[in-house]
Parts: sequence; C-alpha cells; structure tokens
Amino acid sequence: MGTLASAGNRRHFDINPAYFRVMARIVQKFGGTSVGTIERIQAVAKRVKAEFDAGNEVAVVVSAMSGVTNQLVDYATKISPLHDAREYDVIVASGEQVTSGLVAMALQALGVPARSWLGWQIPFKTDAVHGKARIQDIEVDELLRRMAAREVPVVAGFQGVAEDNRITTLGRGGSDTSAVALAAALNADRCDIFTDVDGVYTCDPRIVAKARKLDKITHEEMLELASQGAKVLQTRSVAMAMSHGVRVQVLSSFVDAPGTLVVNEDEIVEKEVVSGIAYSRDEAKITFVGVQDRPGVAAAIFGPLSDASVNVDMIVQNVSEDGKTTGLTFTVGKADLERTVSVLNERQKDLGFARLVPDSNVVKVSVIGVGMRSHAGVAQRMFQTLAGKGINIQVISTSEIKISVLIAEEYTELALRALHTAYGLDQDEARI
Amino acid sequence: MGTLASAGNRRHFDINPAYFRVMARIVQKFGGTSVGTIERIQAVAKRVKAEFDAGNEVAVVVSAMSGVTNQLVDYATKISPLHDAREYDVIVASGEQVTSGLVAMALQALGVPARSWLGWQIPFKTDAVHGKARIQDIEVDELLRRMAAREVPVVAGFQGVAEDNRITTLGRGGSDTSAVALAAALNADRCDIFTDVDGVYTCDPRIVAKARKLDKITHEEMLELASQGAKVLQTRSVAMAMSHGVRVQVLSSFVDAPGTLVVNEDEIVEKEVVSGIAYSRDEAKITFVGVQDRPGVAAAIFGPLSDASVNVDMIVQNVSEDGKTTGLTFTVGKADLERTVSVLNERQKDLGFARLVPDSNVVKVSVIGVGMRSHAGVAQRMFQTLAGKGINIQVISTSEIKISVLIAEEYTELALRALHTAYGLDQDEARI
Repeated sequence: MGTLASAGNRRHFDINPAYFRVMARIVQKFGGTSVGTIERIQAVAKRVKAEFDAGNEVAVVVSAMSGVTNQLVDYATKISPLHDAREYDVIVASGEQVTSGLVAMALQALGVPARSWLGWQIPFKTDAVHGKARIQDIEVDELLRRMAAREVPVVAGFQGVAEDNRITTLGRGGSDTSAVALAAALNADRCDIFTDVDGVYTCDPRIVAKARKLDKITHEEMLELASQGAKVLQTRSVAMAMSHGVRVQVLSSFVDAPGTLVVNEDEIVEKEVVSGIAYSRDEAKITFVGVQDRPGVAAAIFGPLSDASVNVDMIVQNVSEDGKTTGLTFTVGKADLERTVSVLNERQKDLGFARLVPDSNVVKVSVIGVGMRSHAGVAQRMFQTLAGKGINIQVISTSEIKISVLIAEEYTELALRALHTAYGLDQDEARI
Repeated sequence: MGTLASAGNRRHFDINPAYFRVMARIVQKFGGTSVGTIERIQAVAKRVKAEFDAGNEVAVVVSAMSGVTNQLVDYATKISPLHDAREYDVIVASGEQVTSGLVAMALQALGVPARSWLGWQIPFKTDAVHGKARIQDIEVDELLRRMAAREVPVVAGFQGVAEDNRITTLGRGGSDTSAVALAAALNADRCDIFTDVDGVYTCDPRIVAKARKLDKITHEEMLELASQGAKVLQTRSVAMAMSHGVRVQVLSSFVDAPGTLVVNEDEIVEKEVVSGIAYSRDEAKITFVGVQDRPGVAAAIFGPLSDASVNVDMIVQNVSEDGKTTGLTFTVGKADLERTVSVLNERQKDLGFARLVPDSNVVKVSVIGVGMRSHAGVAQRMFQTLAGKGINIQVISTSEIKISVLIAEEYTELALRALHTAYGLDQDEARI
C-alpha cells in the first residue's frame, strides 16, 4: 500500500535522524512509570545516552516517580480540602524536582554530562493560575548553549514559575505539555514522549484485538482522539504541538521500537479516510421532557450550567410535534451529572420543563480521520454498521474530521469491533 | 538557691515576652519528628498560631518529614555512590520544600496568614560548597515587611541558593543552623528549636536518672556539650547562635512546657561551676609503641592524617624513659579508625615506630561549666571521683570551660552517675 510504504521509507529518517544528517535536536519526555524505580531511571539514562552518543542534541523532561504526586496531593488534601493553590504547587512540584536530579545523576554515572533544571532556574515562565498554569515563555538560550557544548539538560516537567517568583504547576499530565513547549522553544526536530504504551493505535487494543499501531497520525487526528477519550497523550499537549508544528513521537519506554509519529498533515501524503476510533465512558446524558418551545430556551438552560462550570458536549434539540413543547438532550461529563441535575431542577419553574431524565449508562464512540474531508459516505457507513448490529444511536455530533455517536454503554465492545472492521482498520493477524 | 530563683523570675520574661511588652519577634524551628505526619503538622500549626495570636511576629523554619531525607539520600546513593553534590542538593532539598508548603497550608486552615519560602525565593544565599554549604547572606526585608503585616513566613530549612542560582544544602542537621541564622538576620528576640526532647539536661537522662533539665545555659557551655557528644543541638547552630548572640530555646514539640534557654553569659548572674556532663562513644584510641624520640615526630604523624581528612581530637605524648623512644596516644572518630591505621601503617618505616595499638572500646566523658574559670579544684574532683570508683583515666584534655577524659567504655554509666553526684547536679527526686 502506497501510504504505508511511503511512511515506512520516511520512518528511518524520522526515527533516527543520525543516519541522514550529522545532528538532530531531540526532546525526550519520560512519564511516571518510566521513572518509577531507580532501575527504571537507570534504563532511562541508557536511552538518553543512546541518542546522545548518536551525535544528537538531547534535552530530557521528566515526571515525578509514579505514586509520588498522588502521595503529595493526598497530604495537601488531608491538611485542607480547600487549600491554597500556591502552596499546593510548592508541594507537588517537588516530585519532578527529585526525578530531575536523579536522572541527571544517572546520566553522569554513564559518562554523559548532564544537569537538572527546575522551572524557576530556566526560567519556564507561566501565568499565575496555580494548579493549571499556562506557559508564557521559556528562556532557552542557556539550555541551547549547553546542549551545543554536549550537555544534557534534565528539565523537571509539570512546573514553571510565575512573575512573582512562585512555583506554578501546569495541571495533571502537564509534563507532556512541558515537553512539547520545550521542544517548540528549542526548535527541536522531534519530541519523544516515552510512556507505558508503544504508540497510538487505530482503537484500544484491549477491546479490539485487531487494532493496528499507527506509524503516523496528524496533529488534528491526535487531538480529536485525545479529546474523544484516547488516553495516550494529554489533549493540551497535542494542541500545543499542533499550534507550534512540533513533531511528537509516542513510544514505549520499555520496548526499544519506533512508536507513532504525530505530525503536520503535509507530512502524510495519502491520508486514511478514518485513522482511528475512540470511545469515552466518561459521558452522561440528560433529556428534558416537555420543554416549552420558545425562543431563548437553550440559552436559559445552558447559561446556568456555564455559570456552574459544567461543560456541555453534545446537544440535540428535537423538532416539536405539537409546536408547543420540545425535547432537548445533551451530554456532560459523568462527574458533573449530579451537579447538573441539581442546578437545573432548582430552575424548573423558570425553564418550564416537565421533568429531567438523567442517564449515565452511555458511551460516546467517535470515528476520526482527516481523509473524511474529501470522502463522502463516512457517516453513512457508521450509521449502517451500527444499525446492522441493532445498536440505537441516541445523539450524533460531527466536526470536520470526526463523527461521534452516543449509544448505550453495553454495546461498547460490539460497536468498536464492528466499526473497526467496517472502516478497513483491522490488521491481518490479531494481536495476542 | 539564688541562682535558680533569679533564673526562674527571668523565665517568665524569656518564655512569654508578650506578658511584658507588646510584641516579640520569634523564630520557631520544627524538626523531622515534629512534622513527621499530617497530624503532627497540624499540631505544629497550633503552636505557631498560639505565638501569633499572642501578638508576636513569628517566622517558622521546618525540616523534612522524618524518614524523607533518608529515602532521598538512599535514592541518590543507589544511582551513584559518588554522585554530583549539586544534584544531591536538588534531590534532598525537596523534603523541606514539601514540609514548608504543608505547614503554610495548615496555618492557613487555622486562619493564620502564611506562605512558604524556599531558599532561592528568600534568597538564603550560601557559598557553592554543595552538601555542606555555608550561609553568606539572608535577604530578610520582604520577610520583615510581611511579618509586620501579620503574615507568617514558613521557611524551608537546610537549603539555600548559590550565586549560580543552584540549590545548596547545609549538611545534616542544617535546619537548626537555618533557624539560628534566620533569627540573627531578623534580629529575633528568640529562636525556639522544637525537638523530641524537652530541654538540655545536666546529663543524658537515659543514663543518669537524677539528671535535671537546665532552665538556662550559656552558648559556650552548649557548644562544648554539643561538640562533646550531647545530641540535642547541632554544634554548628550553637556556634552561630554564640557569634550572633541569638537566644535559643530548646523545647519539646510534644509537651507544652518551657525548655532550656541558651543565652549569652551575661544573662546568667550566678554561674554553676559545672553545668553538664557529656559523653561520646564515637571515639577510638590509637597508641604508638616505640616511637623514636626526635624533633618533628608529631608533625610527621599528624600531617598524613590531616591530608587524609582525619580529625584528631585528644593527644598525649609520654615522656620517654630511655631518651630514645617515646609513647604517643591520640583519639580519632570511630568511623575514621580503620583509615587512620592504614594510613599510618603505610608509613611505618618513615615514622619509625614499633607497632600501633588501636582501641575502640573507649568513651570520652566531659564536665563542662563556665564557672570553672573562677573555681579551682574542678579537675581534681573529677580525677578523685573516678579514682574512687577504680576507673583508670587513659587520656586527659582540657579547655577553659571543659575537662575531658578518655576511659574504658564499660565504665560509662558508672562514671557519669558518680560525676553527676560529685558535682552536685542531682535533683532531689529521681525522674521516673
């Protein structure tokens, strides 16, 4: 197949630039399980050394050792459930601090010049929204100078520093974002995200045995996959990679094999119509029965939810049959269901509905692919496939490169496997 | 007794300055066991709040939660026994960072305005001797401004920042030194060191049941006690308190009672002849037999030991009987014994001795008191008391306010109890 062959040829160039040019600049990010023990930290150092010895400039970004952040969050929560986010950041940022020192030491022990860099030392500047700060600027001149002089910076991920010199953190999974932002600032050739899976799959391999690992995927597709439930990369880090054109590779820190490259669309010559199928069980559906059909009713409903910081995802409004009342269905995150129902019931009189029907036994299934833009019939195939299995579609939403449907949760596996086959994604041999 | 009554009257002034003036400035330092659990951290916050509510300006210095530093050191050592001290500091300093955030949170939860301060934020400037850095300067203007505005700074102990913006640590027990240095810089009225004992005793109460807790002791005496084996305060912190005239109180973080005040000599009107008796089992004795008696032999012996970073403590050279050979005995730390013997045996030919006799079954017992300066007979009483119990004195050394003797270790308890009684230190009722 042309696409794969082409991707295959390019792959050697992508994965090991040292074959084709003297030097590449690479950011390597290692997550919590990858640095979870001293032995794993030493294995990480060997991986970094391999890139370094190939002549590349390497910067490393690390998470806290697995379990550490949870322990620290637990301390903070025990002291005070409503704690000062600035102190929370001081506490939890210590996890990445420890790992950065240990990884730098492990590199030195292998003869690789290395030093740790904390957010405030770089500085890795963010706004002052503690606990979920946004990156503003990374001063990389000194890092670049040292990388050129064959030193490996080991950067504590997840953390930054605000203008008032206090430590900030980027929120859960923020180390991916740190790594991509650093790669953008360093103008790196690639940002390798080492994790406990070996790449991005066409579907969750735990459910679809015939799922294939993708050699490449576009930023846009990855963004949709991540935001529609695939857990491999944080949505925010993908959005940042997309907006800065950072080439990201997702690969396993335990298996020495190429992973999946997340790249700009122009790097992929022939696009798949559908690249992957995502699902999310983190959805809940709410249906209004007997809503008075008058202008502004949607605003009246969703205004209070917005005020209560509830994110509404899919919305479908039924055409009213009698012209007086209408049906309205929408979805929210499962964690927000109770709050949503309570906010709306408080306003039952104002909103003028007969009753609310909440339902958390639903799953959102999404098919995603940039090729969808130029191919008709993608949605139709989805609807037909699900209908063929007797699966009722409750809500539909679409974007330019994605079709999502809400179905009963019990059909999750059946739907995913049927769609995977229907879109020609199955690999020849089932994975064991 | 005049002395005690006088000290007792002053004590109310010392311990609770709020009785006598509107406001005092106090540094409170809490060690690892005092902040070892979330519950203890909350108890610490209550203690701080009590001083704060009394109208005082309070700054807090904290150690890492007990066990944390050992775990971090263990990580570093496992990665590489000969690790980069700069990375070691990044790793171990994280322990105090966590505690400072947690204690600040706990104070806020009690309604006390508080914030954490890390070494680099203050900044708490040190030299660049990582792992045992020396304090150079502490910029306290901002802390003073905030304390005046009724905010409690919670300072991470043990850590500083070098000129190149890298984290340094002050060495084991460095949090005491941090606290005293901060108290000096803040011109604090008192530095309270909360620990797991309730004060300084005339002797180790685990051995001498009649040991008394001292209300006051001079800096000089405390320095001798600490350096002669009493573990209650780090020698270095006492030396700093002495040179800056910082009034230090040692007290229990678990019992709400006054501790022992360590003060300048002029605060104590009538000095005890002997204030306390210390002992150290961390000594080893080496005796040279048949040393050729010629000028320069001592220099020839101790030069190589100095080069090997071995600290020699007590030295005694015997008068030679035949005018040709002499005996020489000295002590080193037990941990250095093996290295000392090996260094010296390598040079047996140069040094011209017959053989070396190492002995680690010794203990150094010291009686200490500033009153010794103006009282004769203190040494004589020591020698008589030990002789009366049949205890042979192997080596003697003295300073202005201290007499130390080396005896066989098996006599430790007997010697301490006999001397405690002989110098009139016993309290009337034995402690249970």
